[in-house]
Amino acid sequence: MTRDLSRLIRPSSIAVVGGGVWCASVIEQCRRMGFAGEVWPVHPTRTEVAGLPAFASVEDLPSAPDASFIGVNRSATIDTVARLSAMGAGGAVCFASGFREAQAETGDGDALQARLLEAAGAMPIIGPNCYGFINYLDGALLWPDQHGGERSVRGVALITQSSNIAINLTMQARGLPLAYVATAGNQAQTGLAEIGSALLEDSRVTALGLHIEGIGDLRAFEALATRARDLGKPIVALKVGKSDQARSAAVSHTASLAGSDAGARALLARLGVAQVSTLPALLETLKLLHLAGPLPSGRVVSISCSGGEASLMADAAVGRGINYPPLEPVQKDALREALGPMVALANPLDYHTFIWNDVPRMGQAFAAAMLGDVAIGCLVVDYPRLDRCSDAAWECTLSAGAEAARASGKPLAIVATLPENLSERMAARIVEAGMIPLLGIEEAITAIEAAAALGRRGAAPAPILLPGPGGEAEVLSEADSKAALAALGVDVPQAMRIEAKDLESAAARMALPAVLKGEGFAHKTEAGAVALNLASSEAIIEAAGRMNAPAYLLEEMIAGGVAELLVGVVRDPAHGFVLTLAAGGTLTEILQDSVSLILPAGDEEVAEALGRLRIARLLAGYRGQPGADRAAILRAVRAVQDYVARNAETLEEVEINPLICTPARAVAADALIRKGKTT
Amino acid sequence: MTRDLSRLIRPSSIAVVGGGVWCASVIEQCRRMGFAGEVWPVHPTRTEVAGLPAFASVEDLPSAPDASFIGVNRSATIDTVARLSAMGAGGAVCFASGFREAQAETGDGDALQARLLEAAGAMPIIGPNCYGFINYLDGALLWPDQHGGERSVRGVALITQSSNIAINLTMQARGLPLAYVATAGNQAQTGLAEIGSALLEDSRVTALGLHIEGIGDLRAFEALATRARDLGKPIVALKVGKSDQARSAAVSHTASLAGSDAGARALLARLGVAQVSTLPALLETLKLLHLAGPLPSGRVVSISCSGGEASLMADAAVGRGINYPPLEPVQKDALREALGPMVALANPLDYHTFIWNDVPRMGQAFAAAMLGDVAIGCLVVDYPRLDRCSDAAWECTLSAGAEAARASGKPLAIVATLPENLSERMAARIVEAGMIPLLGIEEAITAIEAAAALGRRGAAPAPILLPGPGGEAEVLSEADSKAALAALGVDVPQAMRIEAKDLESAAARMALPAVLKGEGFAHKTEAGAVALNLASSEAIIEAAGRMNAPAYLLEEMIAGGVAELLVGVVRDPAHGFVLTLAAGGTLTEILQDSVSLILPAGDEEVAEALGRLRIARLLAGYRGQPGADRAAILRAVRAVQDYVARNAETLEEVEINPLICTPARAVAADALIRKGKTT
Repeated sequence: MTRDLSRLIRPSSIAVVGGGVWCASVIEQCRRMGFAGEVWPVHPTRTEVAGLPAFASVEDLPSAPDASFIGVNRSATIDTVARLSAMGAGGAVCFASGFREAQAETGDGDALQARLLEAAGAMPIIGPNCYGFINYLDGALLWPDQHGGERSVRGVALITQSSNIAINLTMQARGLPLAYVATAGNQAQTGLAEIGSALLEDSRVTALGLHIEGIGDLRAFEALATRARDLGKPIVALKVGKSDQARSAAVSHTASLAGSDAGARALLARLGVAQVSTLPALLETLKLLHLAGPLPSGRVVSISCSGGEASLMADAAVGRGINYPPLEPVQKDALREALGPMVALANPLDYHTFIWNDVPRMGQAFAAAMLGDVAIGCLVVDYPRLDRCSDAAWECTLSAGAEAARASGKPLAIVATLPENLSERMAARIVEAGMIPLLGIEEAITAIEAAAALGRRGAAPAPILLPGPGGEAEVLSEADSKAALAALGVDVPQAMRIEAKDLESAAARMALPAVLKGEGFAHKTEAGAVALNLASSEAIIEAAGRMNAPAYLLEEMIAGGVAELLVGVVRDPAHGFVLTLAAGGTLTEILQDSVSLILPAGDEEVAEALGRLRIARLLAGYRGQPGADRAAILRAVRAVQDYVARNAETLEEVEINPLICTPARAVAADALIRKGKTT
Repeated sequence: MTRDLSRLIRPSSIAVVGGGVWCASVIEQCRRMGFAGEVWPVHPTRTEVAGLPAFASVEDLPSAPDASFIGVNRSATIDTVARLSAMGAGGAVCFASGFREAQAETGDGDALQARLLEAAGAMPIIGPNCYGFINYLDGALLWPDQHGGERSVRGVALITQSSNIAINLTMQARGLPLAYVATAGNQAQTGLAEIGSALLEDSRVTALGLHIEGIGDLRAFEALATRARDLGKPIVALKVGKSDQARSAAVSHTASLAGSDAGARALLARLGVAQVSTLPALLETLKLLHLAGPLPSGRVVSISCSGGEASLMADAAVGRGINYPPLEPVQKDALREALGPMVALANPLDYHTFIWNDVPRMGQAFAAAMLGDVAIGCLVVDYPRLDRCSDAAWECTLSAGAEAARASGKPLAIVATLPENLSERMAARIVEAGMIPLLGIEEAITAIEAAAALGRRGAAPAPILLPGPGGEAEVLSEADSKAALAALGVDVPQAMRIEAKDLESAAARMALPAVLKGEGFAHKTEAGAVALNLASSEAIIEAAGRMNAPAYLLEEMIAGGVAELLVGVVRDPAHGFVLTLAAGGTLTEILQDSVSLILPAGDEEVAEALGRLRIARLLAGYRGQPGADRAAILRAVRAVQDYVARNAETLEEVEINPLICTPARAVAADALIRKGKTT
């Protein structure tokens, strides 16, 4: 169900219910920011609030308000929401706390939240326990605290799950125009994704920035990403939770390799959401996207008048999705002409200061640097502090940069080495001149990397396979797990399950060499309950003697493996089913070589992910050895996904480890499934 | 040889030789910064320069000047240096370029630089081709361009190898007091290390920051680090060059694992120099060190009034040398009392805003948070932008923080989430209140990590083993390499070298199973010239038939390996002999699991480094398997180091790969040595 939030977020009339300082602040801020619509205080006893005539009740208002800020206590909030909903209001921000977030302390928070939801009915509400939102485009501030923004005509939207972070982001002084800032509070009804979808529909919003503590409704988030893609508006997320522990209930290696953070990152990547990890990087990335949009690649040319900055730029790109392509002959010719014989030509380019102040030649040099196959240029500038120095000497760089940006038709960023010295005033001038001010080398590289990742987004992904509700689960035996997977096409070793008493006759019939596994051990390898490469029936019987198990699995030995993989899927209620592909076998946890995807994952996506593993070189055939059978691996991964899809309601985890990859096969030598008990 | 730079860097008299704008700027800046000594312009024809009476020649000066800024052309520079040296001057900055750096273009740069050196004799000179230095303590500026600093009474010294970076660093507006800023130019005579040593001797200098493009004189750099350690003054380096390619001449895996950047990092770590990778991090780390010195550990308590900031702090510490110890019971009791029942107690702590403005209770809460076994507290603050908002509401935090810092006797950092909003004025107030202003969460974590690394510095390391000059080198055969190492105690497999014609009889005598290696192959594994685990003389002969080599190495098969190591040393003229310990065997390059140390490395250091490898868990005994013989591994590494020390003059590289580590032995199954040709 999609509610229409448009009246709420772009109101013509705002009711402010309550008389406290928070409400006065809402009224005052709307006035200060020049909101052109009506602002209607509502108070049962006062005739005016914050200088405006007050109405005794919402029913006395001239019409049903588009937006309401409800700044009264929690039970009065419920009452007000019910009355606003009944009169056809456009929506409300519920400021009061004491709902679900305080259940532990109050004992009635959950119940009150349910009543609030019921009271709202079809009317959209934001919160409770939240600050609301700021519409900087129209000057509509349903926001009870201070903020640092100003009116804008076009800009980015920001949504946070922390009011403090929201305030903090409005305080940026980096030349990023803000269109909206919203907090989602308890998300009793509308969540981050739904609010985001509504803000994206405003044609004056260019990009969306999210500070995410939890994804919330997966389908709603997926819809947000899909809509953003359709609208061509990028989303950047700062997802916290790297430090979270993996789920403790899980039994597979998959779960320890891929904690819930890996699932979140895989989900965001799948949905084409760029990811950053600091507040400054979030702001700089949004600024780059606002001004230049996603970039076709991470190919960059760096231009500075000193080797010091060139080295910093080069180093900052190491291990990132950024590269500096070598200069092409045509560029070198043009640069040589502009810069003279004394300058070494390279990318990153140190153009020295020989031509400083010669704007035409500087422009010619910068334009030549932009000629190559690059998506963006970075002109690195060490702005001075203006309280003690003049930046007059930097004017030539700006003029020449603007000329080069025009000539090349490509984005050119002015990258300030020390963020504190690119003032907001100067940032505005850079934007007016058609360039992109970026504060800090590290942040600039992060922003470009993120914009390039957005530019590489492929077609819209298939809908996410949603996990069921979970519940009491059981672990299937290795034999049962393999049988379940084999039924869907996973290649498993030929095997016999044998009671101890039948071992001798079975050993005599077994094709050799063989593998013997004792049943009933939690950690078979550690317990010595796996014997590989048994070359005779005597060896089988001897190995069984050491294990002394009640029953055994006697299996075909898979020879010729060029690599061992782990293929695992874990149910992650917050992010879907997370497929982990990793270096497998006994060294799984030591190598920690893994990638994660969200189900369903197509063959192409799986192949690309496998290519990102360090052991990809083994799969491809390393040091003269044959490679693995890629098609067989992809078949196995497909079959595992099939199994998950058929058991999505109750599946907790499935893992093949190792999947022994030979030049001709991909065989599940061990497997484990944990799923809901069959009744 | 150590020159005395004290007159030059702390002059009572400054001669300024030349009449150009650069010289006028030096005079003007000394005047503006209140230099109390004499400033003497020297010009052959003018009676005054920049408002001061000029002397016709240096010989006309009232006395030999302590410091001289020589701003004339390169040949006049040489002449002036000679005359200053002859009259007993204290030292000079040589501004002119056109020396060694321009040899390619001018053809006489090298010769002129040699003449300049000769002219200087025992008199210290800085440069040529450099900006000189700024002494902010005494207002002595031998610096011809603008800068952003101001007079200080105590502060950090900065040295860069790029004048542009030096200017840029003076522009910081972060509340970091600068004592000196110097650039080293061509380092014809005094280099970065020698200048640094001189600056450290000034008792008003608290710490040293270096921007390093190349270490230069290794012994001088070592002496700098030693002296800094003795003085208890920390050094922080921003070493560029991560993006440099590994040396192309090397043939071992060691060289490809450990490029020259790994050598630089190992050297700095050995010498107790903290490392950062961005300009803002350099400045913040120096500020923390200036105010609090090195920290005893990376244990931190984080305090914020919102969960948003707590999560950002938690995430920023992931994978860093920082941890947030859980609150102790005594802390929880005190916090519960201060914060009331509604706050979840944890570290990072979100103390909510219930007690906002109640300074005594806030102080009590912050002090309780600082009670634990932590080295530093971080009070995370989202300062507002002051052009649009008031920071009056933040006063209570400052007061309570100052109280907690006093009560705990531990450093407390005020960490600003957005660097642009902690103004220099506010930073100064925070310092006055006895706390540490840090701009940006990421930079704060980096600074704390670096300060903790400095605090963990052990005893002074042994002197670095200096590599010889190198020269034409040859690769020893596997057999010769093993023999050379075995002579010093490396355990090698029992082996016979056999001509093809003698193979049959040798195979019959060989203990089984055996290994056969064909001679004369550059990449034995890829060429199929290694056959392992040969269990019969027939198998040996059959394997030899496939290899068809002129001669063979027939070796004992080393069974029972729990892990394979690579132990390699590469001659790195810039950083010493670099010892690399890595996961070895055929997967060396795939695993990329390596650590680097500089020779000589003691047993303890080697053991600690081995513990940092991912495969350390294999060496320790993994999943119920026995561990490796640590003493045997340490013996092997010692023997390799012995070999290097005995061949330091001509050794290029030595590598054992794999060193097969069994519970009882550490055996060099393959080895390679490249060293100067023996004549």
